[in-house]
Amino acid sequence: VSGASTISTEVDTVAVCGGGLIGASMALALIDAGHAVRVHDRDPQVRRGLGALAGRAGGTLTVAETWEEAAAGATLLVAAVPPGAIADVLVRGARVAASDALLTDVAGVKTSVVDAVVAALAADGGSAAHFVGGHPMAGSERSGPEAADGALFSGATWILTPTEHSSDAALARANALVRDVGGRALVLTPDEHDRIVGLVSHLPQLVASVLADVSAEAVGAQRDAVMAVAGPGFRDTTRIAASDPALWLDIIDGNRAAVVAALEAYTERLATVTGVVLAGDQDALGAVLGRASAARRRLLPKGVDAPTRDLVVPLRDRPGEIARITGALGSVGVNIEDLAMRHATAADRGSLLLRVRADDAQRAVELLEASDVRGVLIEGDDPDVTSVTGR
Amino acid sequence: VSGASTISTEVDTVAVCGGGLIGASMALALIDAGHAVRVHDRDPQVRRGLGALAGRAGGTLTVAETWEEAAAGATLLVAAVPPGAIADVLVRGARVAASDALLTDVAGVKTSVVDAVVAALAADGGSAAHFVGGHPMAGSERSGPEAADGALFSGATWILTPTEHSSDAALARANALVRDVGGRALVLTPDEHDRIVGLVSHLPQLVASVLADVSAEAVGAQRDAVMAVAGPGFRDTTRIAASDPALWLDIIDGNRAAVVAALEAYTERLATVTGVVLAGDQDALGAVLGRASAARRRLLPKGVDAPTRDLVVPLRDRPGEIARITGALGSVGVNIEDLAMRHATAADRGSLLLRVRADDAQRAVELLEASDVRGVLIEGDDPDVTSVTGR
Repeated sequence: VSGASTISTEVDTVAVCGGGLIGASMALALIDAGHAVRVHDRDPQVRRGLGALAGRAGGTLTVAETWEEAAAGATLLVAAVPPGAIADVLVRGARVAASDALLTDVAGVKTSVVDAVVAALAADGGSAAHFVGGHPMAGSERSGPEAADGALFSGATWILTPTEHSSDAALARANALVRDVGGRALVLTPDEHDRIVGLVSHLPQLVASVLADVSAEAVGAQRDAVMAVAGPGFRDTTRIAASDPALWLDIIDGNRAAVVAALEAYTERLATVTGVVLAGDQDALGAVLGRASAARRRLLPKGVDAPTRDLVVPLRDRPGEIARITGALGSVGVNIEDLAMRHATAADRGSLLLRVRADDAQRAVELLEASDVRGVLIEGDDPDVTSVTGR
Repeated sequence: VSGASTISTEVDTVAVCGGGLIGASMALALIDAGHAVRVHDRDPQVRRGLGALAGRAGGTLTVAETWEEAAAGATLLVAAVPPGAIADVLVRGARVAASDALLTDVAGVKTSVVDAVVAALAADGGSAAHFVGGHPMAGSERSGPEAADGALFSGATWILTPTEHSSDAALARANALVRDVGGRALVLTPDEHDRIVGLVSHLPQLVASVLADVSAEAVGAQRDAVMAVAGPGFRDTTRIAASDPALWLDIIDGNRAAVVAALEAYTERLATVTGVVLAGDQDALGAVLGRASAARRRLLPKGVDAPTRDLVVPLRDRPGEIARITGALGSVGVNIEDLAMRHATAADRGSLLLRVRADDAQRAVELLEASDVRGVLIEGDDPDVTSVTGR
């Protein structure tokens, strides 16, 4: 089980440090792929949870009392621990693992982690040739081994961030690891990774939080009016503001430089837009809105080759209603590309938004009407432009 | 059919100007409520569409060739036309309508419209006592009489904006109108209305558009990476950026003062947050995020008395799958409070997010597993905190 030229289906002895959702799910996924897995967590309670998991998973999952015990002779080390602990875990593991063992991690920030690992390996007299950082785009709010799911990474993008020290063989093995657990590898530099997650993950969190904060403060006692007026736009744009602050503090702090750069670019553009609105410059405002609309559609295209339509289906709030509606469509082969609930403002009655292929839309409406589902509307491609009166 | 003291179920002769979605839907809803309705649109093609609607609606809906013909002797005038045309429509209608006819509109901005109507009525020698502005919180992207739906306003909030000139009787009649079409009236001053929609509708649009614009520009050629990394947070926060720019230009311009005030408050708070991130002040950042999280949950509470849990159900992309899952839950009385699709990043396979009452969550998981739906996770209250790795 030697590693340097192993890029395919050889059996690895994998040591995973950290029995949280990601670590435990990786353990299960790697066992499913045929590898031998040893997992360790420094928390005895988590180790007990991992023990229960091992009982269910079969004999190839071993829970180790110490990290060194898990890592001894391993051909693949995975640090699924908080960012600040990764360098120490990998250095300690590398001392006892196979000399060419692949080293990787799963942290959501990369530059600071990768730099720390490379420096720590060098200081320990080791080599960074076998280290390739990683960030799986998958997860759940649940934590701990109880939430582990061997299919968690199925279809998920997994960013790999090799450094100038990483060998080609190590990158190939990291790719194979991702493939083995069902993921899709995407290679970025650590800086590119951090810049992009700063823009598309950390900046949106702050933008949404500030919007919720400012709105709540400005409306003051008019809470009922806000609840009545707030439509899907406000709802969507502030949704992630409800996130657990503790979760985000470490993430944002770990990517401070990229987050500040993103905030600055954002603030500068917002100032331009404020000036444009103040001046009543419709041409300039139209240009910004048009550019943004095109950008959103380009970044997150919906069915480029298969145009879609949204059906707005009035809904009674009772068990079984959704099944009846979706079942009626499924029974004639109309696939539901996307769906969401749209609640009537400040009322119990809502609608079901169903996105179907444009080809299917008319047939779907007729079928629903024949099934006594009345008042179905076909909307355009965008579920959020739901009003001609300004919502 | 005289009006000043009519606040209940008397039959009105209603004249609606404008055969778009809102005007035509109001016509249908008012007929359903037993009123006689005359509708006019200056566009002959729209009038033909209204004629088809009248044929289906029965004899009480009349399409008038001119607005004056529609308004003659009417006891209720509704201007469902663009904001800039409202004052002229109501003044011309009031000249020929019953002397105490209620005058109202459905525009999404109110201060500029209401001021224009009051001034125009005064200049014409009329009275503003019978005028009460309105803004129904309902609609659809579709336009024109073909999309008309008499149930469009069922359960929807309808903001009424009486002025200092409005009589109590007029406000009471406007309330009755809203109730007759199934809506729920909420009274605000025009300024309050504009300030609140500026904050919770127009500001979110600009915030989302600028986020999409800046992200797209900053990532440049890294589009594939962005698409892979962008999670539900980016997706939700930028969703309305895809809106039709033309729709928003007039809305924002009509509410310029309130929008600029909202943008300035937002920018100021964002600058504070940028400083806090730059300084690495975790306490201050935690305070902002915590305040925002509490604010979002307070402004848009989800089942205050019935805590909910989200189930993440792995999904195969084929017709009937959703019906099978929701049907299994409905068959045992588990009500689905909310639902959405979560697509695996850059992959076809996705999950179904189902929000159920917390009491039902465990039962629902067991039921699904018994129905051979594997890998169901229970998440917390927020569908967007979906990762421990930073998404």
